[in-house]
Amino acid sequence: MDIDRIRAAKARLDGHARVTPLLSSPFLDEIAGRRVLVKPECLQVTGSFKFRGAWSALSALEPAARSKGVIAFSSGNHAQGVAHAARLHEVPSVIVMPADAPKLKIDNTRALGAEVVLYDRATEDRDAIGAELAEERGLTLVKPFDEPEVIAGQGACGLEIAEQARALGIEEADLLVCCGGGGFTSGIALACEADAPGLRVRPVEPEGFDDVTRSLEAGTPQRNAALSGGLCDAIVTPEPGKLTFPIMQRLCGPGVVVSEAEALAAMREAFLRLKLVAEPGGAVALAAALYHSDQIAGDAVIVTISGGNVDPEIFAQALAARSSAG
Amino acid sequence: MDIDRIRAAKARLDGHARVTPLLSSPFLDEIAGRRVLVKPECLQVTGSFKFRGAWSALSALEPAARSKGVIAFSSGNHAQGVAHAARLHEVPSVIVMPADAPKLKIDNTRALGAEVVLYDRATEDRDAIGAELAEERGLTLVKPFDEPEVIAGQGACGLEIAEQARALGIEEADLLVCCGGGGFTSGIALACEADAPGLRVRPVEPEGFDDVTRSLEAGTPQRNAALSGGLCDAIVTPEPGKLTFPIMQRLCGPGVVVSEAEALAAMREAFLRLKLVAEPGGAVALAAALYHSDQIAGDAVIVTISGGNVDPEIFAQALAARSSAG
Repeated sequence: MDIDRIRAAKARLDGHARVTPLLSSPFLDEIAGRRVLVKPECLQVTGSFKFRGAWSALSALEPAARSKGVIAFSSGNHAQGVAHAARLHEVPSVIVMPADAPKLKIDNTRALGAEVVLYDRATEDRDAIGAELAEERGLTLVKPFDEPEVIAGQGACGLEIAEQARALGIEEADLLVCCGGGGFTSGIALACEADAPGLRVRPVEPEGFDDVTRSLEAGTPQRNAALSGGLCDAIVTPEPGKLTFPIMQRLCGPGVVVSEAEALAAMREAFLRLKLVAEPGGAVALAAALYHSDQIAGDAVIVTISGGNVDPEIFAQALAARSSAG
Repeated sequence: MDIDRIRAAKARLDGHARVTPLLSSPFLDEIAGRRVLVKPECLQVTGSFKFRGAWSALSALEPAARSKGVIAFSSGNHAQGVAHAARLHEVPSVIVMPADAPKLKIDNTRALGAEVVLYDRATEDRDAIGAELAEERGLTLVKPFDEPEVIAGQGACGLEIAEQARALGIEEADLLVCCGGGGFTSGIALACEADAPGLRVRPVEPEGFDDVTRSLEAGTPQRNAALSGGLCDAIVTPEPGKLTFPIMQRLCGPGVVVSEAEALAAMREAFLRLKLVAEPGGAVALAAALYHSDQIAGDAVIVTISGGNVDPEIFAQALAARSSAG
């Protein structure tokens, strides 16, 4: 992985992915006790940053391989990103999804033209299912994070952040990234290493699924006890990726861990102050900025909202949350 | 009112207001039966387009007059726009608000540093209250819509739409604008007359408060029977403005009228498909595009979401709405 691959991905994304703005609100600044800049990837095509990596991966394939179609396994956001990128490329896509994924994500993935194959997250191995289907039909597997072109696509978001922060005069700040397998975090970290070395990239995870935070502390990959459950489905992964962990070890940390109540309260603040819809896993970085400001350094903090694909019932729960958690 | 005043307002807004993007979703296109482009002014500073007009008006004042402070009467979005613009100019602001305005808007206006004076919408005359306070304290009144510099500021949004539509290759389309007193509608219409004459600007109003639609039909200003009530508080006005109506008569129409149920359903679609928070009055134009497509011409339609300042309780009501109203 090098910065040229990220710059090439960004060039391929041009005209397909949205350049999301960097937003702010005096109300959020007041809660956090410092300036808060928000990168709303919930406004990205398909409602999360995942479209960037998916488009990057599909557009990097040889046309002959791409025309046979692609397969992905995903709790939902990667699924929608791959399905939409495949439809735009006019090639078939098969998505292997956990049966307990939010209904909205399953429905949207189907509506975007993908064939959806459901599996049981507790008893079945999605990698094995994906590999078998890929073999049978000649599909190319697009992994959700441990794949160079996917990391490069997510890194394009980091190049945007670097440029936008510079335009605001922010040279040094913590940059909090919602972290699952680490594709988004490591891609952004590589981009900042090149273009904004004063930004310190820090993964943020929900309690109980803090494998990256613990892995960075321990210096070796740590697994989570639970493999599923919780509201932050978008960023629940068993352990850091094989490609992403060494990058994060070199460039990122320390991690920040937030509670589900804090994620819900941050969703409510994003609703009230930014008029944005964040999903629980997409709100953990904002929650860290708002409710763990003692762990953050500097006059300004940059946070990603990684996605907004949330069922109305869960969002209603966030609206009813207390306005100050923590 | 001429285009030069709008261009001058846009120049003064540069670096203070956000250039909001033009968003889309294949799911919305499918419901509407044509391409739908959404201008999300809910993402504007203070959560509505009103900051544009407020900043335009304050920045156009003589410094000596401005330093004494400003006063505005508003159901909420203009209030927040003026309060924030005054704070950024470091001058005092007094806001006269109806006592039944959404609590979030009253709270936010206070939090933005304004002095809030409440009045009864049914029994008191806000114009008289505003004029008296202005006289007493030497404040300059910033009217919500019937004021050239306010119309010019809102028109800056129209210049953005004209440029963004052109970039997408859209030369001819209906442009649906959420309409109260007509400041936003007439400002956008003037901008389009100059920069995008193929866009037909059409006001959209809620049932029971369709004074502009009826006025355009009748050729003379018509009043609404009710002066308050309903969910679409942001765009409830007694009659079209004296400055705005002749502009709309020359350039706009016909109007479209939607139900509250349709506005709530459109809020739900904005949540699901665009990850945006729209308030009821801010969702009427999207509702018209989605549920009154028989009244709309062409392969593409452009809609404004004029604001997102909605109490959580009302938003929860929208989340529970049926997904297809109409």
